[in-house]
Amino acid sequence: MSERLIAVYEVPGPAAEAEKTARAIAFEETVELPFEFPLPARIREEIVGRPGAPSPVANGRFRVEVDFPAALAGGRIGALLNLVFGNASIWPGVRLTDIRFPDSFLSALRGPNYGVAGLRALLGAHGRPLLATALKPMGSTEEELAESAAAFARGGGDIVKDDQNIVDASFSSFRSRVSRIAAAVAREKTPCLYFPHLSGPQEELEERLRFVLGEGLKGVLICPAVVGLDAMRALADRRRAVFMAHPAYSGSLYAERSHGIEHSLYLGTLMRLSGADITVFPNAGGRFAFTPEECRDIAARSRSALGGLLPAWPAPGGGMNLDNAAAMTHDFGADAIWLVGGRLLMHPGGPEAGARAFREKMPD
Amino acid sequence: MSERLIAVYEVPGPAAEAEKTARAIAFEETVELPFEFPLPARIREEIVGRPGAPSPVANGRFRVEVDFPAALAGGRIGALLNLVFGNASIWPGVRLTDIRFPDSFLSALRGPNYGVAGLRALLGAHGRPLLATALKPMGSTEEELAESAAAFARGGGDIVKDDQNIVDASFSSFRSRVSRIAAAVAREKTPCLYFPHLSGPQEELEERLRFVLGEGLKGVLICPAVVGLDAMRALADRRRAVFMAHPAYSGSLYAERSHGIEHSLYLGTLMRLSGADITVFPNAGGRFAFTPEECRDIAARSRSALGGLLPAWPAPGGGMNLDNAAAMTHDFGADAIWLVGGRLLMHPGGPEAGARAFREKMPD
Repeated sequence: MSERLIAVYEVPGPAAEAEKTARAIAFEETVELPFEFPLPARIREEIVGRPGAPSPVANGRFRVEVDFPAALAGGRIGALLNLVFGNASIWPGVRLTDIRFPDSFLSALRGPNYGVAGLRALLGAHGRPLLATALKPMGSTEEELAESAAAFARGGGDIVKDDQNIVDASFSSFRSRVSRIAAAVAREKTPCLYFPHLSGPQEELEERLRFVLGEGLKGVLICPAVVGLDAMRALADRRRAVFMAHPAYSGSLYAERSHGIEHSLYLGTLMRLSGADITVFPNAGGRFAFTPEECRDIAARSRSALGGLLPAWPAPGGGMNLDNAAAMTHDFGADAIWLVGGRLLMHPGGPEAGARAFREKMPD
Repeated sequence: MSERLIAVYEVPGPAAEAEKTARAIAFEETVELPFEFPLPARIREEIVGRPGAPSPVANGRFRVEVDFPAALAGGRIGALLNLVFGNASIWPGVRLTDIRFPDSFLSALRGPNYGVAGLRALLGAHGRPLLATALKPMGSTEEELAESAAAFARGGGDIVKDDQNIVDASFSSFRSRVSRIAAAVAREKTPCLYFPHLSGPQEELEERLRFVLGEGLKGVLICPAVVGLDAMRALADRRRAVFMAHPAYSGSLYAERSHGIEHSLYLGTLMRLSGADITVFPNAGGRFAFTPEECRDIAARSRSALGGLLPAWPAPGGGMNLDNAAAMTHDFGADAIWLVGGRLLMHPGGPEAGARAFREKMPD
């Protein structure tokens, strides 16, 4: 048990309180016994986490590190979540801000199937951001959605995904809708990719994914917080597909800064560890109160070195318009996906003209 | 689309702001388009949620109801989470406090396999609370865990479960440990049930469950927030086992009262809808800051009428000792499981005497 995994938390002060919390996390997440329990020396030394000294951050809070035997997470997503944020998630005021992984943990995970370069190769798109949109509104007919998707492809769009609200009541309605939209996009003979929303009962997810790939499609939209991070990981391990991860139902983890998991750690690192090729998140300035710094951190963690895992694409979405394209380029660089929904669909010329207008704003 | 599903939220005031948030949720969770988007009348009338008028609650916050077409959740756990708390989870200050389900939604779910009466029948225990403990600490040998479990059974304990921190690196170590503990408990020839922690890679969960049942065991401990609520539902639908749900990794949903999902809605209703026979939660007065009222509400929602679903057992744990047994009885009644960990293991006479001491405190 020599290899260590280090979890970093921000906790309420003062320092003595922060120290107590760090010690409590170290016990709670391993042996879950009172401090005074007469633990055998072997367990106290080899199993119990080791709390570091607290150092002050802003707002009277303190940063503490807890050093765990890496074997307790065993290169597994579920065991990792349980170890670093199982019972700790229930303590008010505890925020997990970082995890430092040993190589053994990272090398046990495959991560993204395509990553940045793989998706560029699929699209033949190099040196520029990608343009994505969402098919909506829910309640539209298959024909309407298929027409929107085809128009977006004609306008030069790269990725058209189902809105995450589109869920199909049955496998047969999923099949029918996906086939029709896929055919409409294919008829345009552009590189544009269509990613259906992979949802439904847990026992059908893999079969639906197989169907999607059988239609010649290359990937899916998925909501990992809904289906489970390790469920996405399992699907990504078994089927070579692009996984575009949507943050639905995950907001409680990060939306309040006083607890939970740091935006970039969850939406950047954990999504990528779980096989996301693309991580969707609400852009700053949109309707969801992410700060520009939080957005840049998500992008950084989705692309920076992480063992041998491929970099993933940040896909900021929401509130994007033709006037902030320069800011988008500045904030996220070329290896980013601009996810534009309403503004593109509402373009006076329709989705085709909308896609063309946004593509023209992109750097080459 | 005549049947409706009603989600109740608490959101920040003033009233005009609360009204705007309710309207935003109604759009965001269905069509996800700006208010001004020219929606076809059919979609505006049949798909978009209908926000009710805000009414003031405490702390300057307001309660608002949003009325959705029930078909959008389609009797599915994943679609439900996405519908009522998908993007809404990402808005700071939004707390989902209640859901009113139509019968059609509830009748599509099977819920708990055993429930209150079924578990009583397995144990032959009637008219009294049940006594449960957790096998720990992680790092103990198989023999040590097996001995603790057997001693607890001899002392009259009802359910001995793995600590949720115990995760097995491989299927073979899981098999070895579970078999040994199961055999040790069986040798005592008491009704005591052993529930191993069902964890591991997603693709192995069902096989591990099959193994557990093959050993003659009747149920498992599981962490639904880690594996996914619908993953538990799928397992419970396919295998008749008792599912004891542990709240690890779910705390961000409820620990801060200003957002997320109400404790009792998540730990009571949603766990039960997803097939939990038993819902574990930190008792008030323990180390996790749940209030007595929140605990009582969890117990109430786990047992009250919910379509044709069986009632589930509340299992308050943490900080329980021999002196607050009367309070436990008063707060939770007979249909509750007392989950006692450290205090029972630390009894001077060991787990057997510890179990006996707690059993003596239980009403008959």
